Amino acid sequence: MKQIEFPDASSWEELSRRPQMDFSGLRDKVSAIMDEVKKRGDAALAEFALRFDGAAPAQLRVSDAEFAEAETLVLPELKAAIGLAISNVHAFHAAQARTEAPVETRPGVKCWRKGVAIDRVGLYIPGGTAPLFSTLIMLGVPAKIAACQQIVLCTPPNKQGKVHPAILYTAKALGLTQVFKTGGAQAIAAMTYGTASIPQVDKLFGPGNQWVTMAKLLAQQQGTAIDMPAGPSEVLVIADSSAQPAFVAADLLSQAEHGIDSQVVLLSDDRALLTAVQQEIAAQLPLLPRRELAEKALAGSLSILLPDLATAMAFSNHYAPEHLILALADADHWAERVRNAGSVFIGHLTPESAGDYASGTNHTLPTAASARAYSGVSLDSFLKQITFQRIDARGLMEIGPAVEIMADAEELHAHARAVTLRLLSLTQEPPTA
Amino acid sequence: MKQIEFPDASSWEELSRRPQMDFSGLRDKVSAIMDEVKKRGDAALAEFALRFDGAAPAQLRVSDAEFAEAETLVLPELKAAIGLAISNVHAFHAAQARTEAPVETRPGVKCWRKGVAIDRVGLYIPGGTAPLFSTLIMLGVPAKIAACQQIVLCTPPNKQGKVHPAILYTAKALGLTQVFKTGGAQAIAAMTYGTASIPQVDKLFGPGNQWVTMAKLLAQQQGTAIDMPAGPSEVLVIADSSAQPAFVAADLLSQAEHGIDSQVVLLSDDRALLTAVQQEIAAQLPLLPRRELAEKALAGSLSILLPDLATAMAFSNHYAPEHLILALADADHWAERVRNAGSVFIGHLTPESAGDYASGTNHTLPTAASARAYSGVSLDSFLKQITFQRIDARGLMEIGPAVEIMADAEELHAHARAVTLRLLSLTQEPPTA
Repeated sequence: MKQIEFPDASSWEELSRRPQMDFSGLRDKVSAIMDEVKKRGDAALAEFALRFDGAAPAQLRVSDAEFAEAETLVLPELKAAIGLAISNVHAFHAAQARTEAPVETRPGVKCWRKGVAIDRVGLYIPGGTAPLFSTLIMLGVPAKIAACQQIVLCTPPNKQGKVHPAILYTAKALGLTQVFKTGGAQAIAAMTYGTASIPQVDKLFGPGNQWVTMAKLLAQQQGTAIDMPAGPSEVLVIADSSAQPAFVAADLLSQAEHGIDSQVVLLSDDRALLTAVQQEIAAQLPLLPRRELAEKALAGSLSILLPDLATAMAFSNHYAPEHLILALADADHWAERVRNAGSVFIGHLTPESAGDYASGTNHTLPTAASARAYSGVSLDSFLKQITFQRIDARGLMEIGPAVEIMADAEELHAHARAVTLRLLSLTQEPPTA
Repeated sequence: MKQIEFPDASSWEELSRRPQMDFSGLRDKVSAIMDEVKKRGDAALAEFALRFDGAAPAQLRVSDAEFAEAETLVLPELKAAIGLAISNVHAFHAAQARTEAPVETRPGVKCWRKGVAIDRVGLYIPGGTAPLFSTLIMLGVPAKIAACQQIVLCTPPNKQGKVHPAILYTAKALGLTQVFKTGGAQAIAAMTYGTASIPQVDKLFGPGNQWVTMAKLLAQQQGTAIDMPAGPSEVLVIADSSAQPAFVAADLLSQAEHGIDSQVVLLSDDRALLTAVQQEIAAQLPLLPRRELAEKALAGSLSILLPDLATAMAFSNHYAPEHLILALADADHWAERVRNAGSVFIGHLTPESAGDYASGTNHTLPTAASARAYSGVSLDSFLKQITFQRIDARGLMEIGPAVEIMADAEELHAHARAVTLRLLSLTQEPPTA
């Protein structure tokens, strides 16, 4: 890690800079893929599968037999772990449901909001050797709680045309039945436009490579909503002298193993702690199967000595990390001062990996400083809040004149008339028979 | 209006199509403007003001003297109306604040969310003859309730270098002091990157022309959040035989006067009502100052006869209008069946213009069918929900093994180790002295 001591606040912007993800060069290629899927649907999906994945699955939709086979392939202990994770994620996200009481802003003017599920959502789970069934839990559970009418899952098969059993087992455990074996930009296109096999959706969720990310951006520009902008994963740890260097090192390494572009930052007011963490990293690194990845990620990462914890918290709020670990004696105190972060892990026994899998919080979180303005995925991500209002005669008399004046001032006279006509109808004598 | 009777469901997609807003041709021009502002800051703003607006204001920031002058120019009755609108919008949006109790997903595993204000937000209000002070109310009130630390307002001055007094009066009434006289794509760029005069922000809000909309899209792609995608305003009215044709006509016209691209749709199960509304439109249209605009908008609009109200509601949910007026005898019943809409106006005495100005609901709403997945602006738009979690020894023993199993199954062994090390520390005997 790069060692930095007491950086001047003027350098924080530079220290907080994430690597620029410029894949605009992909725009035309991805756009061409999406156009093909829009025009030719399933036929285009089959061609792209052949071209990019080496094989097109005989059928796009995962069959009952495939779900049943997956069930036999997942070990009982993994099934139990997935069950526990689903249960905890469900408990946390179900508690996010709310009903707002109507507000009578004036007598006779009643306004309220109601959360209504997004009808059709599309989840994308990447393929590869490591099956991200945990991400499927994070997206599928709130979609189910919201009661989205249509939940589509796309995930690429391997060369044998199979989806990893842990993905299928999790999908079934969540009650997801519309699972399609297609990946990449073409999968995003299929859910954006719909094909004969794959339903069109209103909002897209899930991680992916640069092709998938670009496809989601293009879909967003065409009106399909997306969960959030994507970027490499990040952790920022604030540790003081009470921290266990071995724990801190393990947390930094668990972020670093994600990939060479993982962002890892350690802040402390204690030079000895920073040194001890470096020694622990050196000791733990050789034990990791993904040590080469982790080593490269760490080479670009930051270990920063700051004068005090208040400065460390200020730096963290400027940096706006996806994950923030507070390995501090007085962690609760500092947690209250967090202004920008995706998810916060408080105290020495709260590793990020707990939240990645099973504590109940969502792990789909804002990266690249977008935590300054974005929240992670939650039940809210699968709902719209629709506003309603009902005005009676008294209410219209209360606010009607103000509406008329304001509409006229904005030179929108028909707006004023819509009120005037109604007010007149209230004040006119009923016609005599 | 185009008269359509009993359209087949297969034609709904076509009938729901909004005009494509393709301004991708502007991308390079807007991108060039943004680059200039990024590089040269205020100097670039001055040059663009000269080039596009014919004059550069002597100073960018609105002075105390200008606020004071505006105060003298706004009529007392308009001041009172603005005051009433602010009060109602405040009441409705303040009620959206919430605190969520922590959820103990397992004994010793505590998770919660906290709404934290987005630190720096930028509001954009277009110029032109009609001063959109009402939009300033809709954006400024929730920003203030959220307690955003920095609220920047950009709005273009007129040829005399002045901002409309109603805008300045409203800004002052809201307690906004950082008001800058700059407009167009360059104003969006200034708030995206920051200049010597204008602070950088984390999220951009507000309507604008195609240049502004393109600039917001480009800002979004670079990581600055935006309120929502922009499109022409829309109303869909469902009316039955209980509706007053004059009221319905006035509501349709108040949407049509926004501009020639306004989307206006009327649905009914009653042919006589549809005919009566057309007669009322013909009668009211000549009275409007903006009748030419409204006439053109109406030429492209739809009047659709449907077999029953259930079908009308299904069509509306497919269309996903920005504004939905339920001019129905049993309006409450049908309001509960709304699945896709920005804001719903229930009953014969609830015109859209009430919500546009003063009922308390927000008028910044999703257009172009994005109501299928997006909500209008609310207090939530100015907050992030940050997740927190704290796990104690018991909690780690509850979920730790599941985390280890799942992390190993995803081949993220360092994730597992971060838990394993902590679990070991809990089960090991303390070292003997």
